Amino acid sequence: MRFIVGNTEAGKPNAVFLVSGERACNLSEAHPGIGHDLMRLITDPALLARIAAEGMAELTIASATIRPALPIARPGKVICLGLNYVDHVKEGGYEIPTYPALFLRTLTSLIPAGAPMIRPACSDRLDYEAELMVIIGRGGRHISEEAALDHVFGYTIFNDGSVRDYQRKTHQWTPGKNFDGTGAIGPVVVTPDELPPGATGLDIQTRVGQEVLQNANTSEMMWSVARIIATLSEYSTLEPGDMIAMGTPPGVGHARTPPRWLRPGELVEVEIEGIGICSNPVQDEMATAP
Amino acid sequence: MRFIVGNTEAGKPNAVFLVSGERACNLSEAHPGIGHDLMRLITDPALLARIAAEGMAELTIASATIRPALPIARPGKVICLGLNYVDHVKEGGYEIPTYPALFLRTLTSLIPAGAPMIRPACSDRLDYEAELMVIIGRGGRHISEEAALDHVFGYTIFNDGSVRDYQRKTHQWTPGKNFDGTGAIGPVVVTPDELPPGATGLDIQTRVGQEVLQNANTSEMMWSVARIIATLSEYSTLEPGDMIAMGTPPGVGHARTPPRWLRPGELVEVEIEGIGICSNPVQDEMATAP
Repeated sequence: MRFIVGNTEAGKPNAVFLVSGERACNLSEAHPGIGHDLMRLITDPALLARIAAEGMAELTIASATIRPALPIARPGKVICLGLNYVDHVKEGGYEIPTYPALFLRTLTSLIPAGAPMIRPACSDRLDYEAELMVIIGRGGRHISEEAALDHVFGYTIFNDGSVRDYQRKTHQWTPGKNFDGTGAIGPVVVTPDELPPGATGLDIQTRVGQEVLQNANTSEMMWSVARIIATLSEYSTLEPGDMIAMGTPPGVGHARTPPRWLRPGELVEVEIEGIGICSNPVQDEMATAP
Repeated sequence: MRFIVGNTEAGKPNAVFLVSGERACNLSEAHPGIGHDLMRLITDPALLARIAAEGMAELTIASATIRPALPIARPGKVICLGLNYVDHVKEGGYEIPTYPALFLRTLTSLIPAGAPMIRPACSDRLDYEAELMVIIGRGGRHISEEAALDHVFGYTIFNDGSVRDYQRKTHQWTPGKNFDGTGAIGPVVVTPDELPPGATGLDIQTRVGQEVLQNANTSEMMWSVARIIATLSEYSTLEPGDMIAMGTPPGVGHARTPPRWLRPGELVEVEIEGIGICSNPVQDEMATAP
């Protein structure tokens, strides 16, 4: 199944839409208890099964008219891999790691697909990072690699927008990875049955207009989805709705000569085969000031 | 004012207690809308003012009988400073930074004062870190250093329990700082009017039994509370209930010769003058397995 959380009219509460190609139906109308994001579906397998069985009754809505919201309104945690494609490790000047470089993102840094990605007033070094994002279904600790994929609710797209000078102010990447309005998620969440196991073998691209800036395949990830779930759950309980961003392939702006920063007015698109496109206009922070 | 969130009986919902020395009153009885943590008081200054005006009517409860819970059940973010006392920077082998080393903690890693601090099965390198913790009241972005202290709801104690070998598996500290059940908070949250501005000049100690392991003063922090609020809000909107851990003084276990790791059965106490004591028994993960 393919879901989008969002609304079709500004000011309306968010609903859960079941999507089939260019059409969608509003699940929140048929199932009022479903709530305003995917958490209920994630934590209620019986409801999910019922919706799967019902199928697409009334595809009354054009998918394109849905204004996406975050698929999980308040995720417990958003864990990100820093260096998961060999060629991206090399372009950043890092050693090939024997353990994943992990950092966290806060909710205030996240935006849905479609929303403006904000270039902050204090820096012009806003960069894109195409990433596969995993949404945890059933939680757990000490999950084995063999059982790990049973804990995945679905997959979506992440653009791990990074402010590079703030990312490297110290050895800890936190500030540059947590600017308000820089991490774009969605819009479509795809359940695992629609994709290869672990979402491997999918083309992943970043584009700005005709420029193809990143162009790789998720099979090039060093840590697979199953392996990272096992690794993370060695130290931390994964909870339903937690998100894991799987790291970015080569081609990021700061590793180019000259660097290729995102500029206000541009539209940045991250596409993953079989999932969709996460598209965000870049906006100057000053233009958003009240 | 001094608050503890918690309950006096296992299984009872958490309440907010107003504390005066060894006595306390249950605010959730007089004000049922107050909820089960400090969020309502943080976001409702009128209610806070009313409670301040009412004062301590009926101190019917012995403070010691309150089983502490987290003061904020689901903080939006928990931001931690890595290196904020010069002598701790030196003992860790780092350079004096010109920008704070920042990392994040997830909710799954946090426990209240009194709860077991868990030494994980995969490592015996569990370390203590005494820290002042700031709880944000009024939120904001681009908060000036001059106005910053107006955004503080209160101060509490943090023991930033760290699993050192996992902290240094890569340059990113995330795993070692996010083991389940390692970051202890509370129990008392003190409003700013009861402390010096920015909570400076307070003695801060870690003890295990008779061993004094850290012994410093919050005046030795390189980034003041006001300065860190300005620094963080340059890149991120601070929200009510967000928590900021102000970094630890020298004396941590991994910098000692030989290293001094926390051992199951020990009781680790962090005390900050004018705030209180955060005390947690250390327990082996295997002992907590169901």
